[in-house]
Amino acid sequence: GEFAKIDNHRALRTGFPEVIWSPGKTPDQIAQIMEVMRLRNPVVMATRIEGAVYAALQSRVRGLRYYESARICAITPPEIEPRYPGTIGIISAGTADLPVAEEAAVTAELSGFHVQRLWDVGVAGIHRLLNNRHVLTSASVLIVVAGMEGALPSVVAGLADCPVIAVPTSIGYGASFGGLAPLLTMLNSCAAGVGVVNIDNGFGAAILAGQILRTAEKLRLASSDS
Amino acid sequence: GEFAKIDNHRALRTGFPEVIWSPGKTPDQIAQIMEVMRLRNPVVMATRIEGAVYAALQSRVRGLRYYESARICAITPPEIEPRYPGTIGIISAGTADLPVAEEAAVTAELSGFHVQRLWDVGVAGIHRLLNNRHVLTSASVLIVVAGMEGALPSVVAGLADCPVIAVPTSIGYGASFGGLAPLLTMLNSCAAGVGVVNIDNGFGAAILAGQILRTAEKLRLASSDS
Amino acid sequence: GEFAKIDNHRALRTGFPEVIWSPGKTPDQIAQIMEVMRLRNPVVMATRIEGAVYAALQSRVRGLRYYESARICAITPPEIEPRYPGTIGIISAGTADLPVAEEAAVTAELSGFHVQRLWDVGVAGIHRLLNNRHVLTSASVLIVVAGMEGALPSVVAGLADCPVIAVPTSIGYGASFGGLAPLLTMLNSCAAGVGVVNIDNGFGAAILAGQILRTAEKLRLASSDS
Amino acid sequence: GEFAKIDNHRALRTGFPEVIWSPGKTPDQIAQIMEVMRLRNPVVMATRIEGAVYAALQSRVRGLRYYESARICAITPPEIEPRYPGTIGIISAGTADLPVAEEAAVTAELSGFHVQRLWDVGVAGIHRLLNNRHVLTSASVLIVVAGMEGALPSVVAGLADCPVIAVPTSIGYGASFGGLAPLLTMLNSCAAGVGVVNIDNGFGAAILAGQILRTAEKLRLASSDS
Amino acid sequence: GEFAKIDNHRALRTGFPEVIWSPGKTPDQIAQIMEVMRLRNPVVMATRIEGAVYAALQSRVRGLRYYESARICAITPPEIEPRYPGTIGIISAGTADLPVAEEAAVTAELSGFHVQRLWDVGVAGIHRLLNNRHVLTSASVLIVVAGMEGALPSVVAGLADCPVIAVPTSIGYGASFGGLAPLLTMLNSCAAGVGVVNIDNGFGAAILAGQILRTAEKLRLASSDS
Amino acid sequence: GEFAKIDNHRALRTGFPEVIWSPGKTPDQIAQIMEVMRLRNPVVMATRIEGAVYAALQSRVRGLRYYESARICAITPPEIEPRYPGTIGIISAGTADLPVAEEAAVTAELSGFHVQRLWDVGVAGIHRLLNNRHVLTSASVLIVVAGMEGALPSVVAGLADCPVIAVPTSIGYGASFGGLAPLLTMLNSCAAGVGVVNIDNGFGAAILAGQILRTAEKLRLASSDS
Amino acid sequence: GEFAKIDNHRALRTGFPEVIWSPGKTPDQIAQIMEVMRLRNPVVMATRIEGAVYAALQSRVRGLRYYESARICAITPPEIEPRYPGTIGIISAGTADLPVAEEAAVTAELSGFHVQRLWDVGVAGIHRLLNNRHVLTSASVLIVVAGMEGALPSVVAGLADCPVIAVPTSIGYGASFGGLAPLLTMLNSCAAGVGVVNIDNGFGAAILAGQILRTAEKLRLASSDS
Amino acid sequence: GEFAKIDNHRALRTGFPEVIWSPGKTPDQIAQIMEVMRLRNPVVMATRIEGAVYAALQSRVRGLRYYESARICAITPPEIEPRYPGTIGIISAGTADLPVAEEAAVTAELSGFHVQRLWDVGVAGIHRLLNNRHVLTSASVLIVVAGMEGALPSVVAGLADCPVIAVPTSIGYGASFGGLAPLLTMLNSCAAGVGVVNIDNGFGAAILAGQILRTAEKLRLASSDS
Ligand SMILES: Nc1ncnc2c1ncn2[C@@H]1O[C@H](COP(=O)(O)O)[C@@H](O)[C@H]1O
Ligand SMILES: Nc1ncnc2c1ncn2[C@@H]1O[C@H](COP(=O)(O)O)[C@@H](O)[C@H]1O
Ligand SMILES: Nc1ncnc2c1ncn2[C@@H]1O[C@H](COP(=O)(O)O)[C@@H](O)[C@H]1O
Ligand SMILES: Nc1ncnc2c1ncn2[C@@H]1O[C@H](COP(=O)(O)O)[C@@H](O)[C@H]1O
Ligand SMILES: [Mg+2]
Ligand SMILES: [Mg+2]
Ligand SMILES: [Mg+2]
Ligand SMILES: [Mg+2]
Ligand SMILES: [Mg+2]
Ligand SMILES: [Mg+2]
Ligand SMILES: [Mg+2]
Ligand SMILES: [Mg+2]
Repeated sequence: GEFAKIDNHRALRTGFPEVIWSPGKTPDQIAQIMEVMRLRNPVVMATRIEGAVYAALQSRVRGLRYYESARICAITPPEIEPRYPGTIGIISAGTADLPVAEEAAVTAELSGFHVQRLWDVGVAGIHRLLNNRHVLTSASVLIVVAGMEGALPSVVAGLADCPVIAVPTSIGYGASFGGLAPLLTMLNSCAAGVGVVNIDNGFGAAILAGQILRTAEKLRLASSDS
Repeated sequence: GEFAKIDNHRALRTGFPEVIWSPGKTPDQIAQIMEVMRLRNPVVMATRIEGAVYAALQSRVRGLRYYESARICAITPPEIEPRYPGTIGIISAGTADLPVAEEAAVTAELSGFHVQRLWDVGVAGIHRLLNNRHVLTSASVLIVVAGMEGALPSVVAGLADCPVIAVPTSIGYGASFGGLAPLLTMLNSCAAGVGVVNIDNGFGAAILAGQILRTAEKLRLASSDS
Repeated sequence: GEFAKIDNHRALRTGFPEVIWSPGKTPDQIAQIMEVMRLRNPVVMATRIEGAVYAALQSRVRGLRYYESARICAITPPEIEPRYPGTIGIISAGTADLPVAEEAAVTAELSGFHVQRLWDVGVAGIHRLLNNRHVLTSASVLIVVAGMEGALPSVVAGLADCPVIAVPTSIGYGASFGGLAPLLTMLNSCAAGVGVVNIDNGFGAAILAGQILRTAEKLRLASSDS
Repeated sequence: GEFAKIDNHRALRTGFPEVIWSPGKTPDQIAQIMEVMRLRNPVVMATRIEGAVYAALQSRVRGLRYYESARICAITPPEIEPRYPGTIGIISAGTADLPVAEEAAVTAELSGFHVQRLWDVGVAGIHRLLNNRHVLTSASVLIVVAGMEGALPSVVAGLADCPVIAVPTSIGYGASFGGLAPLLTMLNSCAAGVGVVNIDNGFGAAILAGQILRTAEKLRLASSDS
Repeated sequence: GEFAKIDNHRALRTGFPEVIWSPGKTPDQIAQIMEVMRLRNPVVMATRIEGAVYAALQSRVRGLRYYESARICAITPPEIEPRYPGTIGIISAGTADLPVAEEAAVTAELSGFHVQRLWDVGVAGIHRLLNNRHVLTSASVLIVVAGMEGALPSVVAGLADCPVIAVPTSIGYGASFGGLAPLLTMLNSCAAGVGVVNIDNGFGAAILAGQILRTAEKLRLASSDS
Repeated sequence: GEFAKIDNHRALRTGFPEVIWSPGKTPDQIAQIMEVMRLRNPVVMATRIEGAVYAALQSRVRGLRYYESARICAITPPEIEPRYPGTIGIISAGTADLPVAEEAAVTAELSGFHVQRLWDVGVAGIHRLLNNRHVLTSASVLIVVAGMEGALPSVVAGLADCPVIAVPTSIGYGASFGGLAPLLTMLNSCAAGVGVVNIDNGFGAAILAGQILRTAEKLRLASSDS
Repeated sequence: GEFAKIDNHRALRTGFPEVIWSPGKTPDQIAQIMEVMRLRNPVVMATRIEGAVYAALQSRVRGLRYYESARICAITPPEIEPRYPGTIGIISAGTADLPVAEEAAVTAELSGFHVQRLWDVGVAGIHRLLNNRHVLTSASVLIVVAGMEGALPSVVAGLADCPVIAVPTSIGYGASFGGLAPLLTMLNSCAAGVGVVNIDNGFGAAILAGQILRTAEKLRLASSDS
Repeated sequence: GEFAKIDNHRALRTGFPEVIWSPGKTPDQIAQIMEVMRLRNPVVMATRIEGAVYAALQSRVRGLRYYESARICAITPPEIEPRYPGTIGIISAGTADLPVAEEAAVTAELSGFHVQRLWDVGVAGIHRLLNNRHVLTSASVLIVVAGMEGALPSVVAGLADCPVIAVPTSIGYGASFGGLAPLLTMLNSCAAGVGVVNIDNGFGAAILAGQILRTAEKLRLASSDS
């Protein structure tokens, strides 16, 4: 439709197809865009889909799947297998951060990556993280999701020998100011090697983690070529 | 003088005498206030004294001592012994936080408390803290000083079984916004039992820690009375 | 459940068991966590429980009690007696600050402390505070709750000879900016010895006050040992 | 000069002549404006004059007087007597607020009003204010100057039976954010009847106080006419 | 009730009785406070009363009157006459600012002052103000209410020869940030003699204006005494 | 040099050649860029040149001219005549806004436009503007420069029948927050048809005004073609 | 009515009649103002009309038309033709920015201008813009609407040879802070010649664009006169 | 020394040795830390070294090298060769962003990575970037440095098929607010796969980029093992 110019070459240019960000779009617009995109892409995803929007989409889009806790709708092949070597470890600080952490996990899985989850290991009980250090060592890249004071990525980055992507969440109240507090915490991390994405942006973190694994794969292929 | 109404009964009312906050006061004003206060108080303190101001004060105030890294000037008796049971543990995240941490330490010592220092154990290398857990266990109250992302108090409060006072510092740059980042981190701590003071306010943290030990002493005396 | 890693040793480590912060959790998640926690803890608490959530929990969790004005749900023994010497004085500036002040009071009482309440004594009519100075003198630690301009803790700390914990509330409008105004007021208090917690965080204030009384008790026991 | 359009009728329109705000003006520009204004006004004032600027002005403008602590330069008649009934009480919280409080006091006196000063009576020692309540009762309008947490105007307005003008100052550090903290405190005052001016704006407070006394005088004359 | 400490002497101390600010109070609490206050005060007022709250109050409080556009409930004598000389001119910039402007107007009238209203004369069509300059000249004190950019008080203060009280409103969107934009505008007014109150605080503006007229009356009585 | 990629086609693409923004560049870098640019452009400009930088440039760049109050250095042909019909009216609120207003004026003149200046007509004395309404009527586009509360553009846009470009300045103090106050004022203008540029960005305002006159000229030529 | 002073001469003064901004006005007030305005203006417009408000207006105002995606209600002649030469190009970054972009487009068309729309060409797929450069070249003035990071206007202004008006939108989440992020982006544009309007202010952008085309027309008429 | 606890195992844990951040440290402290670190690390680096500090260090630390435009001091082996496959492309928007871009470049080179620089290709002249697309295609990871509006990373991420690390700089003025504007721009990027670091944090960006290449290398070695 005229209201949207679908970026059909994005997968060619950047490695990942366009994904529909649903807020501000009507279910009709989302459905139309999905139908156009399915013609060219094996997987079509829409993020930030509330239950009611899914209900409206269900009858309009054939074969739609809903990942409720991740708030993602997708058209997918029956089976999705990891296409790249390496593991994306995803760690969350608290139970309430789950929707954002799942947005990251489902986006990564639907994009062809292997994911390992570790939930509710915030710094108030640091032993929960220390007892699960194997997750840190077995991952090739880590996504760390935290609200409130957002201190977990700093601790993780001080322990892990791989890139760390930090996702602040809007979970908190008062002087959290909608996620500003953990955002600033993560940007000021005294542990180097932390890349930060927008508040609640589990999706973006997964795409960045995926880019990292794809780069690794391209370097490997290049080296084995030569 | 007319420009200052010294609060001579503050020690009686609140347990601690007034302390001079030097910014915005001329050396002459500081010296005059010190001379009036020494008539009634065994210890007279002024905080935030830069080197040049100390130089100007030295000739005006007899027997003045300068704690350089703490930026404190004081008139004191020759010997200052702890007058209260218990230890105030003071922990800092980085080397650059030292002036604030020393402001806390010297204030506490001049006020009659026993202090144990632990410097440069920030969360980017969490083992430095874990290797020094004895400081956490032997203290009756902890002051934790941190700039940048300010994550240390959360981790400490999750490990320690005593009150924790958090002091954000203005050490950092960019999105630290003059200490706003660690301040918000500390206020949003997911570890309960953390009281926060103003950015760089080592002085205030020491007074609060002192109040806690004085309360403990008063409760002990009350219980042994009965 | 996998979605939560209950921190069962927190009471051992820090003196207080984990408490459930309800926002962002489903009633089912809250109920499950409560059931696991009751196996190990005499008191199980959940904060920020709105009426509708309590209604949903009531049928799922046996023996649940609701402290409505404090918005707290708890599983408790039939009788709760103070287990520590000393009194936590809790003072609020206005009638609208009551839910936060009660969150502090109920948390403290359920944790084994003796509480004395003093409501609606804000600085616009300072005589209301001055007429109740006995509350200030009989408390071992004070929690002061205030919204709007948040000036009460400064005045109290200038009068009281014990630690003061300041709780800003989101009560107010316009340039209160959701509690930012009283938060800044309290952080900038010219009366030393004030520890500040997050906006509306009555719970955290109570835990800190409790830590102070527990520290006192530990010091007393240590001294009587020797 | 072309660079300035002096508002010669302002005294006629609003009761007060224009006053020169010096920042961003060269000494030459200030001197030229003063020379033009003296032709029409018995008193010519310039505010925010640092010592070095006064030195530069001294040789250019005949008969110039410098009020150092108020940072005001003025051309005045030899004697200035109050021209209006009533007293402007000016109260400051701390010694460091003096320059702002004096800016208010000197502006008011040069504009023909009677001033009573009360310095250094901040809320950390509330008895200092209570012991001087006569200043509150004898004033027709009060200007209250405070930095740090800025709580003094609320307390004063709860005690005084006259208009209160609150002046936040930039005195403080850290979470004072250049005077934002006391500004918000004063705007959110739970005591009604407080008008707030810009941070450090002693000048504006004095003009507003003067307007109040002039209005009173006009009403009196009108009533005695009839 | 214990939940409120009514400040019965406030009228004696400050000239105005306490007024009930309704947000955060239940209709029951409001009704109880009103019943206690009516025993001592001829007029009892509650502000920020939405229609539904008024409905709930109506059956509980006898003789209650609702000023809908001002969102004020009051118990009043049958007739209210101005008790003080002088007029409070109230000017609003736009139609949407009406509730705040009416809050000021009704508060002033119920407190015994004479009010003159001038609505919808914002600076985008400055002739609307210039054509009504008689309102500026006949008032003894002016309240200027404006949202969006909030420029009206500066223009009025440059024209009027009396105190000006500026009330920013939350009317606007985007970079208005809930009224922050007009608040800053008014605080930075280059026209001197403007006192600012909180965003949407029509009530506070009226009390301050009333204090100004009462001060005038007291000065007049004092002068005719002597 | 490698450190700069001069955008030589910018004049072709956008109608105006690149202009050097000096902060963060060494005098050597500025001089090198100027020398390269003079090969292709009749006029070469650098903005934000402090006196000391001009001194350093003078010996390095032949034929350099310094517009001191505008803080602009330029290489120009001996004579610069307006090349486009129409007048850019430039209005400033206060004397201290002059450097920004002159940056706009000199940029416009060096770019080939006719400029009319009107300084120091801020809203505190609105008659100064009303007495000069001919400037408003004779201009084809207006640039309005104001600091402090920044109300002037709203008033001008309500009177003028042409596009208005608003330039907030950092002139002010306290709650001006470095020009944030006038910036918000201008963005929230209730007078439609106001375009805002960055704080102190006289340069950008002049380029936009120039674009407007160039567009007019292109439309005229197009219409006379047909 | 007394609640509104319709600015009937605004079209004469500024070229555009007053337009009704609906938030904070009741449907009754809107209808009354429309009825008064239709007596004098060929087109009467009200912006920010939600569906429910339109439903309420429909029965009260004869001949009302609703532009749903633009949220505009208008009384118009049967046919509206462009009255000025030139084209306003309107470009939006994403599908969700459509309501703001349509507000600009419909305002411009109803005001007598020719509009060309280009939707969904954000910088994440820059080829979508580069493939449509004809829109940039054929427009006399460009309005660029963007949320999220708001980078589109900078890119457009670097390519286009005409004035660019930038409209930030509140589309986005987290660190967008309600549109603050794209607003700051646009104000800091390194491409000169960009004028910015308030967040979501499509209306204001259209009026400014219209002023630019009207100025062009006036200059043309003046030149052909001479 | 006691003032610093050097984290000697950091290279083992995280792959990169500790690097000295100089602000807030005396030259003596820096020199002492360097001497301790050189015992264990082939390369010792200190960032944010101003010229004067370098002068002071030169005599204290043998074999020290100063990278002036990067503000980095280092002890290095005579020759440093890339130790990892892949290229880090570093792109800057303007000439003034050079110090930050060089901080990233030198950090990366000293850490054993191959770097390709592309300076001054900001979005105001997008062809400069498009003409250098080979830099985008040949890099395995990109660092994009930009001040002012910070739009460059979004455009780059829309074109590049590799991870993008965005570094906002404090270059700009007015509504840049010290780099807040480009920081928000980058966090809100509508192009997915962008990780953001602190304002001016070239160092952190280089470490993150290095982690990405090290991860790639580890995955390659793991795959060739099996
Ligand atoms: N949850 C999400 N958070 C941030 N960006 C997203 C998300 N989902 C999709 N996107 C991005 O948003 C863009 C969609 O913009 P639009 O044209 O408004 O649909 C796509 O290019 C995606 O890369
Ligand atoms: N470094 C400091 N930080 C915060 N407050 C301080 C500091 N030093 C002294 N003070 C307090 O500041 C008050 C001094 O205010 P003043 O009357 O201006 O001297 C004293 O009551 C102290 O409690
Ligand atoms: N210290 C001050 N603070 C605020 N405003 C002032 C001060 N001194 C003078 N003014 C006002 O600033 C205006 C001067 O603006 P200008 O045209 O820049 O001289 C005058 O109209 C005064 O009312
Ligand atoms: N005073 C100024 N304010 C804002 N932008 C400017 C100013 N002077 C020059 N510029 C712009 O800044 C850009 C220069 O960026 P740079 O590559 O750092 O020299 C040029 O494209 C100009 O359009
Ligand atoms: Mg948990
Ligand atoms: Mg260190
Ligand atoms: Mg009350
Ligand atoms: Mg004092
Ligand atoms: Mg109107
Ligand atoms: Mg002037
Ligand atoms: Mg799109
Ligand atoms: Mg450049």
